[in-house]
Amino acid sequence: MTNRKPALAVVGATGAVGAVMLQILSQHADVWGDIRLIASPRSAGRKLAVRGAETEVLALSEEALEGADVALFLVPETVAAQWAPIAAAKGAVVVDASPAFRMDPDVPLVVPEINPHAMRVRPRGIVAGPGCTTLALIVAVGALHAEFGLSELVVSAYQAASGAGHGGVTALREQLSLVAGTELGTSPGDVRRAVGDDTGPFPAPLALNVVPWSGSVQEDGWSSEELRIRSEARKILDLPELRVAATCVRVPVVSAHSVSVHARFEHEVTVGRAHEILATSPGVVLYDDPSAGDFPTPADVVGTDPTWVGRVRRSLDDSRALELFVCGDNLRKGAALNTVQVAEAIAAEFTVD
Amino acid sequence: MTNRKPALAVVGATGAVGAVMLQILSQHADVWGDIRLIASPRSAGRKLAVRGAETEVLALSEEALEGADVALFLVPETVAAQWAPIAAAKGAVVVDASPAFRMDPDVPLVVPEINPHAMRVRPRGIVAGPGCTTLALIVAVGALHAEFGLSELVVSAYQAASGAGHGGVTALREQLSLVAGTELGTSPGDVRRAVGDDTGPFPAPLALNVVPWSGSVQEDGWSSEELRIRSEARKILDLPELRVAATCVRVPVVSAHSVSVHARFEHEVTVGRAHEILATSPGVVLYDDPSAGDFPTPADVVGTDPTWVGRVRRSLDDSRALELFVCGDNLRKGAALNTVQVAEAIAAEFTVD
Ligand SMILES: NC(=O)c1ccc[n+]([C@@H]2O[C@H](COP(=O)([O-])OP(=O)(O)OC[C@H]3O[C@@H](n4cnc5c(N)ncnc54)[C@H](OP(=O)(O)O)[C@@H]3O)[C@@H](O)[C@H]2O)c1
Ligand SMILES: NC(=O)c1ccc[n+]([C@@H]2O[C@H](COP(=O)([O-])OP(=O)(O)OC[C@H]3O[C@@H](n4cnc5c(N)ncnc54)[C@H](OP(=O)(O)O)[C@@H]3O)[C@@H](O)[C@H]2O)c1
Repeated sequence: MTNRKPALAVVGATGAVGAVMLQILSQHADVWGDIRLIASPRSAGRKLAVRGAETEVLALSEEALEGADVALFLVPETVAAQWAPIAAAKGAVVVDASPAFRMDPDVPLVVPEINPHAMRVRPRGIVAGPGCTTLALIVAVGALHAEFGLSELVVSAYQAASGAGHGGVTALREQLSLVAGTELGTSPGDVRRAVGDDTGPFPAPLALNVVPWSGSVQEDGWSSEELRIRSEARKILDLPELRVAATCVRVPVVSAHSVSVHARFEHEVTVGRAHEILATSPGVVLYDDPSAGDFPTPADVVGTDPTWVGRVRRSLDDSRALELFVCGDNLRKGAALNTVQVAEAIAAEFTVD
Repeated sequence: MTNRKPALAVVGATGAVGAVMLQILSQHADVWGDIRLIASPRSAGRKLAVRGAETEVLALSEEALEGADVALFLVPETVAAQWAPIAAAKGAVVVDASPAFRMDPDVPLVVPEINPHAMRVRPRGIVAGPGCTTLALIVAVGALHAEFGLSELVVSAYQAASGAGHGGVTALREQLSLVAGTELGTSPGDVRRAVGDDTGPFPAPLALNVVPWSGSVQEDGWSSEELRIRSEARKILDLPELRVAATCVRVPVVSAHSVSVHARFEHEVTVGRAHEILATSPGVVLYDDPSAGDFPTPADVVGTDPTWVGRVRRSLDDSRALELFVCGDNLRKGAALNTVQVAEAIAAEFTVD
């Protein structure tokens, strides 16, 4: 029996997702041999702690990827589009958190609680994970789908600033400092004037505000983030005809996305059965007792692994529809954790009899 | 021709809605004779400005209501339930902003842009206005209904702190001062610990958070606010069978509620026609060009009168459904403005030939 521990490359180790990845790698059972940290040339030479050891960051290059068995890509879409195929050509299995390959028919889109089998077939040597908003809801919705048969989703997202990376968090914190202790927020544009023109990665101020836009402008008024939720949910659940209408709204929360979900099914639903399913599904925590103040909020679930589900209600006018409020840390399950779950399953392939 | 200017009583003049009411009364064409300001005994003797004159606040009593032709009730539900019938018995037409009488079959529930005729029949001498979340969406949705025939609403609200009155705004501002300039919001419960047990009128901290609860606990997991949106929309639109599923979530915004609306109609819809309708409906501003950064946000629409509508999209999988993002100031159209619109229409009845 060979039992070689695979070598891991973390590409994008200095980013918002990268920082959480280093924490998770230090906490999880250690299945990795060498771990090397990679980012842009800007970060080369920085030292970051992983598994208790200070590790120097390398600039992304063909050389830096040499010998990696598994490469985690936690970098912007364009960087992943260019470099993931290079890493794959060098023999690494790539697990990519960016949108670059999610809809490529030759790249599986994997959420281990839902479609773990899909990662076994990877013609391009690349496995993708979905976006953070899809990940916030898909584990809970997938569990309900297995029992009731999903036919339609109407979702409204409450997206945290860190969904836009380190830059999003910095912008929110700076803006909050400008508005705290003031009487702003009561006349049109007063917050905008206080914050100034630099609203960071957001198209409007986020402090004392909500911003109904994330991603790029697509056809017919849709944003890229909204269309992605639709195409990713369809691919992961293997429901190519699933009806999905999504609205993405940024809220002044540091980390943890929330989603208000209206899910319609083929079969009649009951809250009781939905509770049973959610209470026993891996990766889901049911937290649903409003009379005791129990419902998930981002401030309470940030930094935790599971998808938290509360506010489960059956639509009063439709016995096949459920309303849910789900909350999950967009940097953990929404990105780093899902990536590492896939990578650890692949690492197990290196244990050969 | 008699042309007596009716006497007005503003009950709840010291509250969050009351403060905006005094502004509006000072700005609108002056149709009123005497205006008297009323609040709890706690506020008796305070002086507030209305129509440019310092006016002393009276404690609510039978005497204080004597001689009022129209009485605006901007007080908590229990106070309105007790005192509105007394004011009506004394001959005043009551316009009540509270939930106390909204579903009473003998009390019309009026939004002047939608069902102005309804206010003419008022067997109890009371006219009610709907809640602030219903008001945020109903003018826009009502205009689309007139053309396309509404059959279903799925709505997720982004409710501002002032929807919970002065106490809500104070709590949000205090909490923001505690979290600004910190690194909070990244580990479970850190915001909760910093804010402490007193979270004001909200069941969880609102700074750096969103809270999926408002109102009281009702059957089957619903909140009173969510059920109200359903019953109020049905009554105002005269659609007793309308399917409505609402989710209410509080967000750290001072004033102006936003709602993500999925509206399904009897007839096919197009974005072009929806734009035409919304652009020409009274009380609605269409603000919908994401490529130019044009979509409504609370920070930009707070303090304004209309319902702002953006992000108009036709569902990709359902040619009868539209997605909208609507925004309106919960203290203006959401409460004080709607109340005053009704009251001014009633004042016109005092102009008798
Ligand atoms: N944030 C989320 O919630 C989330 C969720 C799911 C998926 N994702 C995806 O995860 C990826 C990373 O997101 P993030 O939020 O962590 O972004 P981020 O905070 O902006 O970090 C970006 C990372 O990419 C590196 N990078 C940028 N340009 C590079 C280049 N030319 N060569 C090599 N490395 C480069 C940066 O290194 P330097 O520090 O050296 O610039 C940094 O490590 C994105 O594709 C995003 O779509 C994010
Ligand atoms: N806030 C909104 O967005 C909104 C929207 C639609 C409808 N409403 C409804 O409007 C009403 C007022 O809301 P608000 O937000 O303005 O609340 P608020 O800020 O708490 O103000 C409450 C007002 O009621 C007065 N009041 C309280 N107890 C009283 C009593 N026993 N006798 C006489 N007056 C009394 C208060 O006077 P003191 O200052 O003397 O205590 C104050 O003027 C509520 O029914 C609410 O449901 C509010």
